[in-house]
Amino acid sequence: MEKLQRIDAYWRAANYLSVGQIYLLDNPLLSEPLAAEHIKPRLLGHWGTTPGLNFCFAHLNQVILERDQEMIYIAGPGHGGPAAVAHAWLEGSYTDKYPDIPQNTAGMRQLFRQFSFPGGVPSHVAPETPGSIHEGGELGYALAHAYGAAFDNPRLVVACVVGDGEAETGPLAASWHSNKFLDPARDGVVLPILHLNGYKIANPTVLSRIPEAELIKLMEGYGYRPHIVSGHEPAAMHQLMQQTLGAVFDQIAEYKEGRADRLPMIILRSPKGWTGPAEVGGLPVEGTWRSHQVPLANVRDDAGARAMLEQWMRSYRPEELFDADGRPVPEIMHLVPDGPRRMSASPHANGGEILRPLAIPDFRRYAVEVKDPAAQHSEPTRVLGAFLRDIMAANPQTFRLMGPDETASNRLNAVFEVTGRAWNAEVLPTDEHLAAGGRVMEVLSEHLCQGWLEGYLLTGRHGLFNCYEAFIHIVDAMFNQHAKWLDACHDIPWRRPVASLNYLLSSHVWRQDHNGFSHQDPGFLDVVVNKKAKVVRVYLPPDANTLLSVGDHCLRSRDYVNVIVAGKQPVLDLFTMDEAIVHCTRGLGIIPWASTDAGATPDVVLACAGDVPTLETLAAAALLRQYLPDLKVRVVNVVDLMRLQPPTEHPHGMPDAEFDALFTTDRPVIFNFHGYPWLIHRLTYRRAGHHNIHVRGYKEEGTTTTPFDMAMLNDIDRYHLVVDVIDRVPGLGTTAAHLRQQMLDA
Amino acid sequence: MEKLQRIDAYWRAANYLSVGQIYLLDNPLLSEPLAAEHIKPRLLGHWGTTPGLNFCFAHLNQVILERDQEMIYIAGPGHGGPAAVAHAWLEGSYTDKYPDIPQNTAGMRQLFRQFSFPGGVPSHVAPETPGSIHEGGELGYALAHAYGAAFDNPRLVVACVVGDGEAETGPLAASWHSNKFLDPARDGVVLPILHLNGYKIANPTVLSRIPEAELIKLMEGYGYRPHIVSGHEPAAMHQLMQQTLGAVFDQIAEYKEGRADRLPMIILRSPKGWTGPAEVGGLPVEGTWRSHQVPLANVRDDAGARAMLEQWMRSYRPEELFDADGRPVPEIMHLVPDGPRRMSASPHANGGEILRPLAIPDFRRYAVEVKDPAAQHSEPTRVLGAFLRDIMAANPQTFRLMGPDETASNRLNAVFEVTGRAWNAEVLPTDEHLAAGGRVMEVLSEHLCQGWLEGYLLTGRHGLFNCYEAFIHIVDAMFNQHAKWLDACHDIPWRRPVASLNYLLSSHVWRQDHNGFSHQDPGFLDVVVNKKAKVVRVYLPPDANTLLSVGDHCLRSRDYVNVIVAGKQPVLDLFTMDEAIVHCTRGLGIIPWASTDAGATPDVVLACAGDVPTLETLAAAALLRQYLPDLKVRVVNVVDLMRLQPPTEHPHGMPDAEFDALFTTDRPVIFNFHGYPWLIHRLTYRRAGHHNIHVRGYKEEGTTTTPFDMAMLNDIDRYHLVVDVIDRVPGLGTTAAHLRQQMLDA
Ligand SMILES: Cc1ncc(C[n+]2csc(CCOP(=O)(O)OP(=O)(O)O)c2C)c(N)n1
Ligand SMILES: Cc1ncc(C[n+]2csc(CCOP(=O)(O)OP(=O)(O)O)c2C)c(N)n1
Ligand SMILES: [Mg+2]
Ligand SMILES: [Mg+2]
Repeated sequence: MEKLQRIDAYWRAANYLSVGQIYLLDNPLLSEPLAAEHIKPRLLGHWGTTPGLNFCFAHLNQVILERDQEMIYIAGPGHGGPAAVAHAWLEGSYTDKYPDIPQNTAGMRQLFRQFSFPGGVPSHVAPETPGSIHEGGELGYALAHAYGAAFDNPRLVVACVVGDGEAETGPLAASWHSNKFLDPARDGVVLPILHLNGYKIANPTVLSRIPEAELIKLMEGYGYRPHIVSGHEPAAMHQLMQQTLGAVFDQIAEYKEGRADRLPMIILRSPKGWTGPAEVGGLPVEGTWRSHQVPLANVRDDAGARAMLEQWMRSYRPEELFDADGRPVPEIMHLVPDGPRRMSASPHANGGEILRPLAIPDFRRYAVEVKDPAAQHSEPTRVLGAFLRDIMAANPQTFRLMGPDETASNRLNAVFEVTGRAWNAEVLPTDEHLAAGGRVMEVLSEHLCQGWLEGYLLTGRHGLFNCYEAFIHIVDAMFNQHAKWLDACHDIPWRRPVASLNYLLSSHVWRQDHNGFSHQDPGFLDVVVNKKAKVVRVYLPPDANTLLSVGDHCLRSRDYVNVIVAGKQPVLDLFTMDEAIVHCTRGLGIIPWASTDAGATPDVVLACAGDVPTLETLAAAALLRQYLPDLKVRVVNVVDLMRLQPPTEHPHGMPDAEFDALFTTDRPVIFNFHGYPWLIHRLTYRRAGHHNIHVRGYKEEGTTTTPFDMAMLNDIDRYHLVVDVIDRVPGLGTTAAHLRQQMLDA
Repeated sequence: MEKLQRIDAYWRAANYLSVGQIYLLDNPLLSEPLAAEHIKPRLLGHWGTTPGLNFCFAHLNQVILERDQEMIYIAGPGHGGPAAVAHAWLEGSYTDKYPDIPQNTAGMRQLFRQFSFPGGVPSHVAPETPGSIHEGGELGYALAHAYGAAFDNPRLVVACVVGDGEAETGPLAASWHSNKFLDPARDGVVLPILHLNGYKIANPTVLSRIPEAELIKLMEGYGYRPHIVSGHEPAAMHQLMQQTLGAVFDQIAEYKEGRADRLPMIILRSPKGWTGPAEVGGLPVEGTWRSHQVPLANVRDDAGARAMLEQWMRSYRPEELFDADGRPVPEIMHLVPDGPRRMSASPHANGGEILRPLAIPDFRRYAVEVKDPAAQHSEPTRVLGAFLRDIMAANPQTFRLMGPDETASNRLNAVFEVTGRAWNAEVLPTDEHLAAGGRVMEVLSEHLCQGWLEGYLLTGRHGLFNCYEAFIHIVDAMFNQHAKWLDACHDIPWRRPVASLNYLLSSHVWRQDHNGFSHQDPGFLDVVVNKKAKVVRVYLPPDANTLLSVGDHCLRSRDYVNVIVAGKQPVLDLFTMDEAIVHCTRGLGIIPWASTDAGATPDVVLACAGDVPTLETLAAAALLRQYLPDLKVRVVNVVDLMRLQPPTEHPHGMPDAEFDALFTTDRPVIFNFHGYPWLIHRLTYRRAGHHNIHVRGYKEEGTTTTPFDMAMLNDIDRYHLVVDVIDRVPGLGTTAAHLRQQMLDA
């Protein structure tokens, strides 16, 4: 068979398998006329994008074979799940991962049935799909994921199909400029394929309806060399795509050899629902928005529609594509690369397979020396910075630090001693730390930081995203999707554990002296704890040494999202390194030197989580020692927020007996919390003493003001805490009235 | 004075006032040598962006005067708060709004002192700043806000300065294409001024470091006609800016007259921290990232630095700019437009001033007729669609519907009977409902939907954003900022109430048959309730008539964010229109026909909120009637979620006595909730009966599956509810063991 014919056969086979998944329960090879009982009772799925995705799969396989190219594929319009599944099945990796779906008629039948079926496989590209690192749900992150996968993978090409609808999203629009952060020597290459099928759900797309000259300028403006592949006639399109890919991969080679400074991209203009029904009920379908989902409805009951479906499926000439046993014919199998060269079997797309543990120096070496607790100050993130520096030095190919231009502001600048900021654009003499191949990624886009890191982690590497606390909400939705991805992977045996996604949230709500109200929002934690307990972890280390201990722990972990909230401003050193390790391992504990209840039941528990609330709590405890020396006060600091939940709710959850021993069941607990107060109630409402827990936290009061004023505005300051104690401890109300008044006047 | 000299004087005055705000406590006119006590103890603020913003203010004022142009100004890099404040003070509108800050020396002194000072004014552009509709906090939304302001404002030009750092964000990158949704006849014009000062916080910016030819292509690719204003020598720059603005406004006129189809934009390349200290401590400052915040530190204590500051401030020649009483000299005042032509006093920037109430037809007219409750089905959003259609018809200039291409999918398509989808690009014969000047805005960017709507509302109009529930998280951060804006406006008497921001969340977590796990996230409600109670409202109407009633209520309201969650799939009609009105006005209530406790204390309360959970609850109640006819069951449906809170926490909060009467204090309450279950605990944990409330809700279980399977997976289905009742009602455990087993086997 001639090359283009082989590609066409592969394409037809993939299209056939895609249509089959959407429609068929049985009779997969159409060995008998299509009958009602062969059709699924509910028709679900997205056909429109699928033939275009299949077209790319087929042609890219040819390139892999010809150039022995390492490649993975990201389907931006990942609602075209049938395409990725069809491809994986043709390549045999579907059967490798799911032996109950063999490459034969029975397997094909099962492949069709399970698609979008209760208990079956998702209709979108998903963690279940071999070869994918990109969920086909929320649109906009394909290109960021692609770049994340390409960093530090010098031999890899990441082919990334971008939907023209998807291209309207903010994150996608920002992602084009990722090429300014790519280093030809150190990194791989991303090949964007902008798929102009003309429509999103029910509307045309912007990029398909602007003049082509403008579109080309846009792509050139983004710094790419655009190539157009446009048409609908299969033979001509195969020819064109093949020639174009030849030119494109030659340009990629030029770029890798330093002979070109711009990478190519492809504009693929093909009809939505290509090769599907041209018209249904007198209305055009192929090439319009009507083909977005299921072009033929009611196929089970309507014999006419069923005839159209049969005609459509037979138009792919299945008899040429599959043998009598339902196996793809050898001509098609010729287009399947070997083993891990198959995009559906690439270890890059199952990053845990190639994950190497991070080389982590002993974090104790970076400890702040603490002779007396609360006697001196450190800037926690600055201390962590030195640790991160040495991690970056020890893992020169497998660790990146992301941030929206806040790495220095968050005082992690020690990292610049060993690496630069990734930069592949003009450099001026006044610049500092810019470097092609730098591994600190600073772009003013939280979406890109998150998307790049996800792509980097899912291809088997490690990293940390440092961000202002308030603005991490920008990626709430991306976090949700990543957490769901990790959650789903837990139940997929062949998905190997990947490094956790670590957030370091600094410049937090309590220290917004420069910025004020708009920068005050500790609510990301509330978003995080909505996700499955097996996936999420939240830490609030109150000082430098606890931050080191927590940081070390998170960087070693797998398959979690870890959120660390820590200040960059000087705070008191509370724990020696040894104490910090014990405290963080426990996750929470009594601070003995601040407590006065040794050997007795306390009159009141002062609990705290977060650096500023902890300092205020300690100050309140000191006031109480001074003014009410007989009061038995227990100070409890919480680092690992998930400890507060019962063990039934979270793996870190503390058994009731322990919780009750620590917090008592009958004494007032004044809990001073970093975030919105209700989160503590939510975590503790099942505890016996919950009705005694009184929480202070951020309550949306603030402006550009001093840290102490911020504490006062939200009643988390020492004086309010003392008043709370007076009000809550039985008997104190009358005897401590003087002190109460003094505190309110403070 | 010659025109350019006048502009220069205005610019110098604004710069002088900006530096004064950052540094000075006293001696505002430098009438004596600068001494330590004249300097603020803490130096806060952002100088870097400020001179560029001032430069634009000055030149645009000239245009306003010459062309009698209606204009407002959006400062993307709104951290340059000093610029907007200086401008408003020079224009006199600052004094109009804050009479305690007169236009004289005392006023200037006070203006300086209050900036970034505890209890003073925010360091960023903020609601407190006259002339602004755009908070200078979270970057990325300037251009979307600008377009939102321009829609349906045919005479308005919105000048929008875009930071080159800001331009790296996703939302901003997507916003450029907003011009495809602008109608020359119906809408105003946005003039983007891309401010290439070269830096973000500590890094260069992408757009300042790509070849200029690429940048021009990029802007042309976005569909603009770029004009470059580049340099640093003030006189030459004034000349160039003035000429450029002449050409730009001529092109705008051409466009408005239909003689051009592309609008101009300006690329302003000027040094960051322009006119500030060139070098400090041997390091370059002007024109580098070092000028981002406060270029001279330690000025109070360091006489050398103080001398530099004095020299810097005197370089603006204040003696030429202000008279002996501190009033701007007449030459400067000449550049101030009249009354509402002043950008700092435009009524468009205080939208409540020009807000007209929406003409709303009687929503009862759209009611579904309900003879028997739960006997027939309707699609709630489709019913609402007819109501929205007539609202759109009745308010042809002041209402827009936004959505990420989901208006038809969310079944609101009746609106297309009276208006089209805004579209100013190529139209094909197969297209439907595309129209220049259409008022349904469909772009695949939740960020644009939100940003446009915010801009539209803040300039005094009305609207609704319909969105898939899961993906509304994409705008969590934008919602936060808008809620904070509304919150702050409550305390600013001159900010008049604006129309509420209304969300209609459909295609919700329980009906994801097509899409599965990635589309299941009801957590936006958790984000929303973190914001101030005075600003947020959440409604879960369970059927078509309650949706109509809630919709009417929300569209009439002011200064809130209203979240309505409603299904598009057929659900049972539960309430006649009259009943629906009573039920929604009450916010929650007993469903008598489903309850069996009339005249008695119930054995169990079945509470529910949300359409699918309500249907399951009603089904459970029916099972209980059938199998346990002696059990006294009370069914309570909650529409207005905020009713669950105590009145101390939310204005809608229900007094304890009422709550206790409805839910009892001692009977088990099985609460079936639309969202994550903990939200109900959070809202009710202060209630006497809280320990008896058992909540079912979404717990992150799901895939592509049937609605009923979704309910089963998350235990919100009728059978689980019956089992809950058996397990919770004392005494039932043993007697109802057979029924329990039957339910579990169902
Ligand atoms: C962020 C987001 N908003 C909305 C949707 C709903 N949605 C699913 S598919 C689709 C259209 C996608 O269009 P395009 O990217 O062009 O893909 P294709 O035409 O190839 O199907 C939309 C809006 C989504 N998946 N993600
Ligand atoms: C979304 C977001 N991320 C991060 C920040 C922190 N931040 C404040 S100013 C700034 C740099 C802004 O650069 P640019 O837009 O170029 O403004 P300019 O240079 O005029 O100051 C950054 C990153 C922010 N305000 N918003
Ligand atoms: Mg498309
Ligand atoms: Mg800048």
